[in-house]
Amino acid sequence: MKALREASSGRAIEVIDQTKLPFALQWVTLRTAEEVAHAIKTMVVRGAPLIGVTAAYGLAMNAGAYDLLKATRPTAVNLAWALDKVRTSRDLWAAAREIAASESEACRRIGDFGLPLLEKARRGDTLRVLTHCNAGWLATGDWGTALAPIYAAKAAGLKLHVWVDETRPRNQGGLTAWELGEAGVPHQLIVDNAGGLLMMRGEVDVCIVGADRIAANGDVCNKVGTYLKALAAKDNGIPFYVAAPESTIDATLASGAQIPIEERDGSEVRGWNGAKLFPDAVPVGNPAFDVTPARLVTAIITEKGVRT
Amino acid sequence: MKALREASSGRAIEVIDQTKLPFALQWVTLRTAEEVAHAIKTMVVRGAPLIGVTAAYGLAMNAGAYDLLKATRPTAVNLAWALDKVRTSRDLWAAAREIAASESEACRRIGDFGLPLLEKARRGDTLRVLTHCNAGWLATGDWGTALAPIYAAKAAGLKLHVWVDETRPRNQGGLTAWELGEAGVPHQLIVDNAGGLLMMRGEVDVCIVGADRIAANGDVCNKVGTYLKALAAKDNGIPFYVAAPESTIDATLASGAQIPIEERDGSEVRGWNGAKLFPDAVPVGNPAFDVTPARLVTAIITEKGVRT
Repeated sequence: MKALREASSGRAIEVIDQTKLPFALQWVTLRTAEEVAHAIKTMVVRGAPLIGVTAAYGLAMNAGAYDLLKATRPTAVNLAWALDKVRTSRDLWAAAREIAASESEACRRIGDFGLPLLEKARRGDTLRVLTHCNAGWLATGDWGTALAPIYAAKAAGLKLHVWVDETRPRNQGGLTAWELGEAGVPHQLIVDNAGGLLMMRGEVDVCIVGADRIAANGDVCNKVGTYLKALAAKDNGIPFYVAAPESTIDATLASGAQIPIEERDGSEVRGWNGAKLFPDAVPVGNPAFDVTPARLVTAIITEKGVRT
Repeated sequence: MKALREASSGRAIEVIDQTKLPFALQWVTLRTAEEVAHAIKTMVVRGAPLIGVTAAYGLAMNAGAYDLLKATRPTAVNLAWALDKVRTSRDLWAAAREIAASESEACRRIGDFGLPLLEKARRGDTLRVLTHCNAGWLATGDWGTALAPIYAAKAAGLKLHVWVDETRPRNQGGLTAWELGEAGVPHQLIVDNAGGLLMMRGEVDVCIVGADRIAANGDVCNKVGTYLKALAAKDNGIPFYVAAPESTIDATLASGAQIPIEERDGSEVRGWNGAKLFPDAVPVGNPAFDVTPARLVTAIITEKGVRT
């Protein structure tokens, strides 16, 4: 499954509009770097690896759009990594295509490396996994990161149950539930508050999430709320895995404290899909990511293997 | 401020319809035990102490409605405590009124006992408090439990900033933000995922929450998600206080593991105020409470003092 494809004619790409899911599956065509930048900023495309791939194509559309594209979102490092890779290439379009292909292949390998870790964590008949946000094929272009080992487990015939955090304020859990439903993987959506209780009650065997940036010391920046789940996993002796391509690792940062955390508009918290959850006048704070210290991460799964 | 008052004529009570807040302030009259039971079940009235007071009046309306009222919600022990108190009284209405008065007085005293603890936690000019759910006067009939020390701090002239967890799925953070706004206490609403990051960044001095039931060993059952915040407070060396009247303590239970956790309907997660957040077909889990182990609780503040 792909969330991005090259348009059949001309130098354009087609992406699934992820702001419409899980209610509607709509593809939109992006023809210019400006359209690409807007799609990233408004989260029509989202997920660290997919942001990188999409931005790469944007730069291939207009080699002068580096700064515009880089400024769209500050936290995911895959964005800058992909832009730098394209910028230094001779054939920009071919470089973007190569990034798309290599990120897909990385995800497939993450699935292979992750599967035995999930199997090892299983405590009963059914492997019970908790995940936060969406780190499936919608977030990467193919397979996914955190969901890749789950899809591999499904393919291997394991009995599965996935607890899906709704992931306020943007409710990316709806994307994950939709992906899992399409793939026939049993799951339940829960509010972000519920995972701690489930872990305490012994209803979770393993947690697995994606990442937006990983510091040199192994601190993991991911969707806000990840840190809370990692704390609960630690408190209950449950393994907590992070799955991400190597492009997510930022070796220039010594620790997670140096990772810039995007602060998004309060309107995301006050409303959803046109519905008003809170009055307009309510003052809101809306940090989009948090940092999970390396000490809470059992291992990081990349396309190169498992780093503990 | 009161969320419940006796009607001016007849044996009826008037309560604020908390399903309408923060968008509209509407009072509804409850004239029968059946109406009271329905109001509790549908969360027109909510908050452990207020549930107890309301149920007490319900039993005073119909002495035969004990089982009906007790079955409305399973987790908050104040409900059974209040019903038992009324049932064994000679004048049921007077007993209900006495419970309402004593719970209000308990909250006032919780404010007095809690204020020095908040003051002690302050690290800078402004005392920065994080709270989960609504444990203000809306939840108790007067003052509140967790919010009582905050109102006391405001009255004492302290500079305050309150981080308000939105508290999915029922968004009681909207009630807390509304209360704080009415009282002129500066605050910001955040998604339930955000508190861990704020604590890690040093933007929270102290956490304070209410409780629905406290076991003999000090384990605290409160709105789902409380446990995750307590873990983050511990991880960042931030005091975590629980404020509740003595009626919340269930000495018959050795530990929190024995507290029944209400599982509510999945429709609460899928939608809000008529708005669709997730498709109807999404399988949902919806536990309403969790248990915070005593080891994560700095102290419990009751009307009798501070228990560590």
